[in-house]
Amino acid sequence: MGKSLEYSTIEELSKLLSSLEISTKELALHLLDRSEKLDPDLNVWVTMNPNLEIETYSQGNTSQLAGIPMGIKDIYCTRDMKTTCCSPIYEKYEPGYDAQTVKMLRDAKAVIMGKTVTTQFACGDPPPTKNPWNLSRTPGGSSSGSAVGVASGMFPAALGSQTAGSVLRPASYNGVVGFKPTYGLVSRQGVFPVALSLDTMGWFTRSVKDAAILLRYLSGYDAEDKDSVKVDTKSYISNTEPISRPPYIGIVEDFYYENSDRSTMKTFALLLAKLSKAGAIIETANTQLDFDSILKSHRVIMNCEAANTHKDNYEIRPDDFAPRVKEIIENGLNTPAHTYIQSKHFQQNYTRQVSKLSKKYDALIMPTSLSAAPTTETTGEPIFQAPWTMAGVPAISLPYELDDDGMPLGVQIISNHFNELNLLSTSMWIESVVNFTHKPPLI
Amino acid sequence: MGKSLEYSTIEELSKLLSSLEISTKELALHLLDRSEKLDPDLNVWVTMNPNLEIETYSQGNTSQLAGIPMGIKDIYCTRDMKTTCCSPIYEKYEPGYDAQTVKMLRDAKAVIMGKTVTTQFACGDPPPTKNPWNLSRTPGGSSSGSAVGVASGMFPAALGSQTAGSVLRPASYNGVVGFKPTYGLVSRQGVFPVALSLDTMGWFTRSVKDAAILLRYLSGYDAEDKDSVKVDTKSYISNTEPISRPPYIGIVEDFYYENSDRSTMKTFALLLAKLSKAGAIIETANTQLDFDSILKSHRVIMNCEAANTHKDNYEIRPDDFAPRVKEIIENGLNTPAHTYIQSKHFQQNYTRQVSKLSKKYDALIMPTSLSAAPTTETTGEPIFQAPWTMAGVPAISLPYELDDDGMPLGVQIISNHFNELNLLSTSMWIESVVNFTHKPPLI
Repeated sequence: MGKSLEYSTIEELSKLLSSLEISTKELALHLLDRSEKLDPDLNVWVTMNPNLEIETYSQGNTSQLAGIPMGIKDIYCTRDMKTTCCSPIYEKYEPGYDAQTVKMLRDAKAVIMGKTVTTQFACGDPPPTKNPWNLSRTPGGSSSGSAVGVASGMFPAALGSQTAGSVLRPASYNGVVGFKPTYGLVSRQGVFPVALSLDTMGWFTRSVKDAAILLRYLSGYDAEDKDSVKVDTKSYISNTEPISRPPYIGIVEDFYYENSDRSTMKTFALLLAKLSKAGAIIETANTQLDFDSILKSHRVIMNCEAANTHKDNYEIRPDDFAPRVKEIIENGLNTPAHTYIQSKHFQQNYTRQVSKLSKKYDALIMPTSLSAAPTTETTGEPIFQAPWTMAGVPAISLPYELDDDGMPLGVQIISNHFNELNLLSTSMWIESVVNFTHKPPLI
Repeated sequence: MGKSLEYSTIEELSKLLSSLEISTKELALHLLDRSEKLDPDLNVWVTMNPNLEIETYSQGNTSQLAGIPMGIKDIYCTRDMKTTCCSPIYEKYEPGYDAQTVKMLRDAKAVIMGKTVTTQFACGDPPPTKNPWNLSRTPGGSSSGSAVGVASGMFPAALGSQTAGSVLRPASYNGVVGFKPTYGLVSRQGVFPVALSLDTMGWFTRSVKDAAILLRYLSGYDAEDKDSVKVDTKSYISNTEPISRPPYIGIVEDFYYENSDRSTMKTFALLLAKLSKAGAIIETANTQLDFDSILKSHRVIMNCEAANTHKDNYEIRPDDFAPRVKEIIENGLNTPAHTYIQSKHFQQNYTRQVSKLSKKYDALIMPTSLSAAPTTETTGEPIFQAPWTMAGVPAISLPYELDDDGMPLGVQIISNHFNELNLLSTSMWIESVVNFTHKPPLI
């Protein structure tokens, strides 16, 4: 094996498993062992799958996910484990059924290793999880455990979710790939909501190819998700390859350049030079987007819908909510309907603007976050990721370099709705140019 | 001519015009003359088209609407007339452009006779318009002038709009055909909104065939209407004919039977017998719909969105709003966002229920309104029409009989989303069975 099992991709592991070079049990126990060693420092897990050893024997070989161990954010319902949302209110909750995406993973014979730490109710309160690159830095939120598990070699892939920036930001902070598909492309059935106009399922992997593999297994219409969209998903993501011509890339400078820290700015400029040298056609995108209004509307929609989600529990047990969740609910409860309606209309118009803008390019790029991971009293700012969640366009973050403190930085890449093909193939091209091979300083 | 010009259908007039038996000018002046005689009693008009005589000369003959005079509810913007919404705030408003649907009518060479009375801002305050069947009865609202103009022989067709029951109720009260297509099928660009989740353009005609003809000219995607839907509209409504086999009809009894007055119940039962005798397969539809919650959610959505529509004007000129509009705005302003969000979720689930229910039948039928037109201190109750507006399914009302007081009663017919073909062909079949030929007791 050229690479250690703990840092292999789905693609690599799948080959080892199907050629019988390793067994599913061997792989699972190896990763379990690593988990047990690292978890006391990193706090990735909420619940480990009690049936893991049994499951590892049930290998199938028709699926690329057969025998692949995965972490699942603890807001996804699971038939055989608790789903706590890392909240005292749900600490004993056993839904007894699988979220649609978990079911799809099991159908593809993936091995569900267990449930990973989420910030409380997938909002902004800091989690116990630590950043494997530097334990004094935040792993980001809200999909903290899923991101850190992939970054630290506990599992090759994990499910998360994004309402503002909860997949792409932790991906960026932890040096892994974070992907969020087009709104409506992947079912949210069985996942505890934050705000249904925004919530998008997503995942962490070690390569763009792996993100594409998961999309193939997880996308598709689901009548149980009220915003699920009927589109043909199988054809355009079946076998993603790097784009075969130099990609045409637009840079989103407005707002992003003025809010990035110096280290990010400097490193991002070098990235652009590198991409350009490799043949990419790069130009400044004339976005004409009003980012202040975008973020304000995003916040209104999130607060109001989260208030609706939590209202009944909040009335009975207000003190069991963490401060940031509480603030969101309170703000939401105090917002009049017409303010919410205005924000929804804004979202609709803005979504069209983004669609029009992104149509021009193979992809738009910008830094994923303002800076590398900040310290642990926060999960970091979601303002760089939220605009694309709100527009519902697919987005991916790739690690591309370390900053002066040795912390990973991510580049965010977006494309038009349901244009995952271009997004992924352009991202694969960028990935091959940046060739990020750094690993966190762990055992 | 077998029929007087004033009670001819579009179909009949189009034949007369294209065979040159009458000229567009002759027709327009004839109807103008009738308008001038009747309007002092009926109050149909807000503004007559000052260019009418010029327009009547611009006859084309490629369109079935060429030379057909039409009334336009005074919330549709028009390039050459005021658009007042019958509100003191807009009494001098000259938009200078045509609503998309008005533009489409002009492109089809229809003659825009003028702007018809709406209740203030298309809400529930009684209008000055009178019911031609009995001047002491309401014409219904909000598209009062458009309905009465068609009923009294001033023009063969007119545009209205429906947020609760503002097309089908006045159609029923005045003994004409009222039609509202699937939500998203006809552009609302340039029409003053009430509540954008509910507002649907619609029209009044003297036959189902005429409703279908207008649909052919007025349907289609419009990027300027945020809820416009991309569907192929031309194929399935090009040449609607009565359904060629006995239609399979579901009766919606729940809620409708318990709220209809005795005269409506009695007459509706005779209608069912008549349809059954003519060959229709009729059964009770098992709706399992919670009409109380439907109407409550409808009200919340309407109030909140109307508050958003009017908020800026209301802050400056509260006293220029009529009592019913005021009440809607006040209720809306005082509704928290989470209540609105719940109603929107309810609407989504309910819409799926209706879609599933209506799929089983060629059409569902029920009385259009609780009773014939009540007296003029009200525009009548919209509770029989609002459920289908909220579900976004196409709906039509046909006059089928007079009640004991000689007032017309309507049957409401609905079908599944974008299933206008079945709705219209089933309605044509019903129309031919009921053969309603009564006319209001006018000159």
